[in-house]
Amino acid sequence: MTDRPRSTWCRDAILPGIALACVLGTAIGAEAQALKEVQTPDTLLVLKAQGSFFVGGDKTDQTDVELGNLGPAGHIAVNQMYVRFMVPQDGADNVPVVMVHGATLTGKSWETTPDGRMGWDEYFVRKGHPVYVPDQVGRGRSGFNQAVFNNVRAGKAAAADQPALFRFSDEVVWPNFRFGLKPGVPFLDSQFPASAVDELAKQGVPDVSRLLPTPNPTFKALTDLATQLRGAVLMGHSQSGAFPLEAALLNPAASRALVLVEPGRCPDTYTAEQIKVLATVPILAVFGDHRDTPTGISIRPSWQLSFEGCQALLGRIKAAGGDTRMLNPADQGIRGNSHMIMQDKNNQQIADLILQWIDAHVGKRSGGNK
Amino acid sequence: MTDRPRSTWCRDAILPGIALACVLGTAIGAEAQALKEVQTPDTLLVLKAQGSFFVGGDKTDQTDVELGNLGPAGHIAVNQMYVRFMVPQDGADNVPVVMVHGATLTGKSWETTPDGRMGWDEYFVRKGHPVYVPDQVGRGRSGFNQAVFNNVRAGKAAAADQPALFRFSDEVVWPNFRFGLKPGVPFLDSQFPASAVDELAKQGVPDVSRLLPTPNPTFKALTDLATQLRGAVLMGHSQSGAFPLEAALLNPAASRALVLVEPGRCPDTYTAEQIKVLATVPILAVFGDHRDTPTGISIRPSWQLSFEGCQALLGRIKAAGGDTRMLNPADQGIRGNSHMIMQDKNNQQIADLILQWIDAHVGKRSGGNK
Repeated sequence: MTDRPRSTWCRDAILPGIALACVLGTAIGAEAQALKEVQTPDTLLVLKAQGSFFVGGDKTDQTDVELGNLGPAGHIAVNQMYVRFMVPQDGADNVPVVMVHGATLTGKSWETTPDGRMGWDEYFVRKGHPVYVPDQVGRGRSGFNQAVFNNVRAGKAAAADQPALFRFSDEVVWPNFRFGLKPGVPFLDSQFPASAVDELAKQGVPDVSRLLPTPNPTFKALTDLATQLRGAVLMGHSQSGAFPLEAALLNPAASRALVLVEPGRCPDTYTAEQIKVLATVPILAVFGDHRDTPTGISIRPSWQLSFEGCQALLGRIKAAGGDTRMLNPADQGIRGNSHMIMQDKNNQQIADLILQWIDAHVGKRSGGNK
Repeated sequence: MTDRPRSTWCRDAILPGIALACVLGTAIGAEAQALKEVQTPDTLLVLKAQGSFFVGGDKTDQTDVELGNLGPAGHIAVNQMYVRFMVPQDGADNVPVVMVHGATLTGKSWETTPDGRMGWDEYFVRKGHPVYVPDQVGRGRSGFNQAVFNNVRAGKAAAADQPALFRFSDEVVWPNFRFGLKPGVPFLDSQFPASAVDELAKQGVPDVSRLLPTPNPTFKALTDLATQLRGAVLMGHSQSGAFPLEAALLNPAASRALVLVEPGRCPDTYTAEQIKVLATVPILAVFGDHRDTPTGISIRPSWQLSFEGCQALLGRIKAAGGDTRMLNPADQGIRGNSHMIMQDKNNQQIADLILQWIDAHVGKRSGGNK
């Protein structure tokens, strides 16, 4: 789709004043967002605190081979979850929001958008909420357990023992993330910044989900994080869209609300008892537009099926007395939103709808916190 | 070294008020830093901007197998470098500082310390410098090219074709990072927060350096970043300690200064012409204490050898007219600093020495920037 020589030329030519010509010269700009595309907000960001920490983690002992032969056998930490946070100046009374990313991605999903606009992490902080952005266990700065790969390399395990590492191709992303039916041809009303699709591609990392123990340690880590925060709104996206439900089942008291953004699948196997627990927590599901687009991948023929599955689950929870809502912006005339709705050009408009729902259904936090 | 049942118990008991007893009850606390250990600064942090973006990156076409069979063959982005940044309120006139992490680690190295104190990223921002923290190409949020692993899994490549993925064991870290001669026994004057070694362990991620093309794409990405910033101080640590030298050779004009923090190795192969180029950029090398400690790993018998190699290189550069300095805090009576000097208990004291050197040798930036 993009010819290699030109792409290489573009990379070499990324110097002030030259980059733009390069972008215009290629079908999908290989350097649509250099640093210079990043926008500076009009007003200062005043933080009470920012930083990062880990939640959870296990010690495991590994052989010299499993450690890559850098030294003798010993212990390492695995299954920990990296979390970056920002707390606004006057946010102590507002409920924290935890934002979890989707498949083949990291917490970067919620930061500066591919075309350089403010991410939801900062936007929610500016609206007064402490924000916590993890990398799922096994992804990005959370690391993963490399032992099996080194064992396979050394002939101590069968090649089939190491799990597949997933990536979405740029071509699959167009229909699957609903930017357009075909690569390079955005929907006429598409809200995704089409010129920045190549920058989105750079957010891709290998997805080692199949390497993780069952249940996925991220569920427990999210529960522990919400507990340590003395209550939080848990927001998941795509692959992690249903993670907040799993976390809430482990400790519903710490889950002040669940926001399921374009979940890949809402479970249809919860028992009546589990539904009763979920009915104690306000739940919002948010979906974009063009959900009938054929995705071209086998695990999800269309996102409309995900929508209908979540509608059914939230219906069950509502019938059990729960406070649930399906938010479909297209119903309000807001058209063209993609799967990467937090990066869409109208991402602040969508964020405002979620913030209004949080204000109305969650209220202030009880008792201050850092 | 740490018994597994107790470690698990600690993980399960991480609730307010219970965690501390848990930490005290285990030789190396499995939960030394939960969120509650993270300290809130006394004064607000006022930012002109913060966010993240990518530098560089190549498009590569991959088969369905190489993509993990999530969809058909297509293109993905590889070799990009993730960068997170913070720009202080009044930092436009101060030179930006780029902080690159070491082996088996990510940009997290420079963030909140394992025991919850402010990292150098925020400290340098509070001292007026815009700060840019990358994940090296192939690490953390920069992702890596997973193709060969999926080919090996599918029997389309030999197991030996996939590179070893490195990790340091907790036991190796004690002598190698110079916390103490033996695991669990810190030097009497150690500046590293010994109770938080298990939290440092959580910063470990698989190191895929052997997967990368030659030269390491991080060199070019650092140069491009410095160029886009219209000049920056490039700071490397350990594995990346010498990266600033490589970046400066690609574009010395964009490298306002180089700070080599505990570099694993200073190259001894530079030509006279390369030395002449490096002599145009101020260079500071910083080393901690206890450098004679036997590390127990083959690639580096002791850090004193690294110190002497850098002393020799900086001597050559100085002889060519360069502005170089070996900073050995122990010479000033500041004892006990470790390899993870940016996380040591006196990390702000060390940072101040570096900031003073930057002030004296680099000066203000020429022309404003974001």
